[in-house]
Amino acid sequence: MTEAEFIAALRELPLHPAARSLNDDTALLDAGPLVVTTDTLVEGVHFLPTDPAQDVAWKLVATNLSDLAAKGATPEGILLNYPLGDDAWDRAFLEGLADVLTTFDTRIIGGDTVTLPANAPRVLTVTAFGSDAAAPARSGAREGDALYVTGTIGDAGAGLAIALAKQGPAELLAAYRRPQPRLADGRILAPHVHAMMDVSDGLLIDASRMALASNLAVSVDLTRIPLSEAYRAFSGDRLAAATAGDDYQLLFAAPAEFVTDATRIGAFSSGSGLTLHDAGVPVLLPPSLGYEHRPRG
Amino acid sequence: MTEAEFIAALRELPLHPAARSLNDDTALLDAGPLVVTTDTLVEGVHFLPTDPAQDVAWKLVATNLSDLAAKGATPEGILLNYPLGDDAWDRAFLEGLADVLTTFDTRIIGGDTVTLPANAPRVLTVTAFGSDAAAPARSGAREGDALYVTGTIGDAGAGLAIALAKQGPAELLAAYRRPQPRLADGRILAPHVHAMMDVSDGLLIDASRMALASNLAVSVDLTRIPLSEAYRAFSGDRLAAATAGDDYQLLFAAPAEFVTDATRIGAFSSGSGLTLHDAGVPVLLPPSLGYEHRPRG
Repeated sequence: MTEAEFIAALRELPLHPAARSLNDDTALLDAGPLVVTTDTLVEGVHFLPTDPAQDVAWKLVATNLSDLAAKGATPEGILLNYPLGDDAWDRAFLEGLADVLTTFDTRIIGGDTVTLPANAPRVLTVTAFGSDAAAPARSGAREGDALYVTGTIGDAGAGLAIALAKQGPAELLAAYRRPQPRLADGRILAPHVHAMMDVSDGLLIDASRMALASNLAVSVDLTRIPLSEAYRAFSGDRLAAATAGDDYQLLFAAPAEFVTDATRIGAFSSGSGLTLHDAGVPVLLPPSLGYEHRPRG
Repeated sequence: MTEAEFIAALRELPLHPAARSLNDDTALLDAGPLVVTTDTLVEGVHFLPTDPAQDVAWKLVATNLSDLAAKGATPEGILLNYPLGDDAWDRAFLEGLADVLTTFDTRIIGGDTVTLPANAPRVLTVTAFGSDAAAPARSGAREGDALYVTGTIGDAGAGLAIALAKQGPAELLAAYRRPQPRLADGRILAPHVHAMMDVSDGLLIDASRMALASNLAVSVDLTRIPLSEAYRAFSGDRLAAATAGDDYQLLFAAPAEFVTDATRIGAFSSGSGLTLHDAGVPVLLPPSLGYEHRPRG
């Protein structure tokens, strides 16, 4: 598609008043204090060249909304930085974009389109804005707090394996391709918890980051990590689930007596670092706690 | 560099309080009404693989600040979406980033780092936030308004030719590699003009976009387009200057009697489209009015 065609298609999606109908180089945002987050997805790194474009659009927006959810924010809108490609991919992307925007009541604020050199992998960025946030930091965990996580862990990791092998339960594949940001949970939890973040790179690495930011040690009980029935049937490997990432569940620190539907999986104490145990028996840390960005050099 | 090393280096740069010391997945921005803009630069498309990384950083930030300038906004800060590469390039990029941030009193708010597949062209995004804006739209030109432009046009286009040929005046090369956003001019002009935008894709295409958005026709007098002495000595081609782009001057519509240091180069009238003349003699429009994004398909 041309830039003009793409922008015309965006105008058919929910537009934020700040977008000035996409007729300007800038947006004017006046929504009070804002939570701002941005994520870039790279073809061949964060998604597979064979992933449907609809699902890439969904994931690109949903991963950003997940960061808003971890601050208890309500989505205000997004900026989209988009590489124009072939018509079929662009149209499929726009379909998925319409889906995710309407599902999570989010609007287009603006963006930029570019052309990539031939055969370059797609690089897509979304910046998301949220309002009305309690905005717990990841650094607020206190000594004696328990560590909790919403939902189940490992489904998306299994979904990636299924996408690569091209066989396995659709439910797990959907967890990888269509993550559900926990916006409602985030709004309920944010005013009451001490620290919160979403699980994007892996439960263990993200828990260790919360502990590091809070100047505390954290211990995680492997047997308590919540697994879905589909994941148990597919693999059941708890350590794989805890390091796979892409879960987009909420990980939070709160007092041990906190009443919540989330699962209590660990505890914070003075000191530093992550320790792992299995029903009281210490477990050696795996070589990788999750996804870390590596230089390409 | 690793992500951790890169973020540690960013912490040495001017940080916005909203950044929460880059210890969180989100930023918290509470600066009143905001002007928001985002631009993506692609290696091999918007900059040359041989351009120094310091200059790429400068240009990435400066092009965004130029959009803020066109709204009369004061830079609040930026988000950076950065592909980690080889150490030398990353360090040079950080040098240029420090330069441009301190030169224009802008701060880091947050961002994201990614890893690209081997040999992929770099794709970099900056999103910039500005405050205190009068924010004239590009659509506000009125019948009878004159068209004005700040500074001189064509220097950056000549600079690109010089970068490719590896010879020519340093002053023109600098106009291409280190554009100067007209922030001070923008703040002075914004409350008084009817429409304003920056010249990024080419004077003629940007003038025609302002006319289109304002539902008017615009005529431009080629002989009035302001050229630098360096450009006159290098080429002097006015049509090339008017279509080359990358000028990052301010283009605005205001009454014909408006008092300004900017150059009056044309006029708006009822109707539609762009007409070009040379001291009263009609000139045929060139095949391309400036840079337009083309699909790669």
